[in-house]
Amino acid sequence: MKAVEKRAVYLKVRDQLADKIHSGIWLANDKLPAERQLSEQFDITRVTVRQALVQLEAEGLIFRANRRGWFVAPKRIDYDPSRDIGFVRYVEDQGFHARTETLSKQLVEAPQWLSQLTGLAEGTPVYEILRRRYINDRPCLVEKIFVNPKHCAGLLSHSLNQSLWELLRQHYQLEPAERYIEMYPQTLDAAIAQQLNVNTGCASLYMRRICHDQQGEFLELDEEFWLHNALKVVVSVKPPKP
Amino acid sequence: MKAVEKRAVYLKVRDQLADKIHSGIWLANDKLPAERQLSEQFDITRVTVRQALVQLEAEGLIFRANRRGWFVAPKRIDYDPSRDIGFVRYVEDQGFHARTETLSKQLVEAPQWLSQLTGLAEGTPVYEILRRRYINDRPCLVEKIFVNPKHCAGLLSHSLNQSLWELLRQHYQLEPAERYIEMYPQTLDAAIAQQLNVNTGCASLYMRRICHDQQGEFLELDEEFWLHNALKVVVSVKPPKP
Repeated sequence: MKAVEKRAVYLKVRDQLADKIHSGIWLANDKLPAERQLSEQFDITRVTVRQALVQLEAEGLIFRANRRGWFVAPKRIDYDPSRDIGFVRYVEDQGFHARTETLSKQLVEAPQWLSQLTGLAEGTPVYEILRRRYINDRPCLVEKIFVNPKHCAGLLSHSLNQSLWELLRQHYQLEPAERYIEMYPQTLDAAIAQQLNVNTGCASLYMRRICHDQQGEFLELDEEFWLHNALKVVVSVKPPKP
Repeated sequence: MKAVEKRAVYLKVRDQLADKIHSGIWLANDKLPAERQLSEQFDITRVTVRQALVQLEAEGLIFRANRRGWFVAPKRIDYDPSRDIGFVRYVEDQGFHARTETLSKQLVEAPQWLSQLTGLAEGTPVYEILRRRYINDRPCLVEKIFVNPKHCAGLLSHSLNQSLWELLRQHYQLEPAERYIEMYPQTLDAAIAQQLNVNTGCASLYMRRICHDQQGEFLELDEEFWLHNALKVVVSVKPPKP
């Protein structure tokens, strides 16, 4: 019986460094040894060290901070789309601290793409809210939200640094019916990358939720741009009937 | 009431090009006009043209082929993890052609990480299968599968260029119980990037399924590495009880 595969040298180094993270020897936000030290310790070139580190970065296990070196990435948040309980709750249920910062809020005219997705007439006034959300004080996503003002007049006069759905429930007795969620990998454009303190083109997870009320009327559309290493989507599935 | 936002010039160009794709004027695999032509047509610099194209690439709407220019990306396949019906069926249900190519198959000793995830003792013999899967003749994912041989002796003597689960059902009467699925964005390492004809470091979606049988015994673990623009995860969610 053969070995599982012949691992390249940089992948063997990757495995040893990953082990230190998975086994808890290195903890979230710990600084890794300098590249020069790793090169001496493993008796490999700086180029190979860099390959191993870039691989770990691609997997989301470490991140680099400008001029300060490499650090262990915090654990990803588990997000189960089939139990869509809201950012604050799923972050806090997992023992992290959630914080929300409103970047802008205004009444705008629904652009064409929003109208096509939601059935609202183009140009209809809608609330547009831009927020940044933090997990343990690390900015992890930027979200752009459009809300139909029809049943929540005055929404923008409230603080939006809280769960939007709690606010819609408590002040406006609005309750979402079905939500339609889409997710796919993307890279970040300059504006959002800057808001998350990363480089333009950084990998991310794009998530869009469209939400209607019990009468089938458009309530809210939410576009989220997640740092690629902040989130893990998890689902448990029962088998389909054969 | 203000406009939705002041769009940078490159984003306005992006919007016009995206419209041609969404409205069906440009179809999947169509070649875009040369960058020089776009620069003249929109009366903007080549640098701005390139910014708009890179933005569309990041969103997965276009792709570049070496020395041949830019092309419209095929539509993403919808994948609903809550109805885990298998690659061949969900690709063909959406009107595409699915094809599977076995790259290698062998009996190996379970590595430590597999043992930790599945409860198999380290070093237990397991089948390891590497496959590449195509949608309409475009390689879209590479998958590495580990199968517990206990209840499917001789599996590797079958052709594996077909649905693995159909094979396990029909020849071995194996039926999965619950599956546990994880997904997150990653970038591709050199080996997998090469198998998908893209550059190392290209964005991808990583997906892992762990599957046990009705008795809770480990059946199969599947790691999939998807091209970032080949797949869209879609979920419809009923509201939780307040």
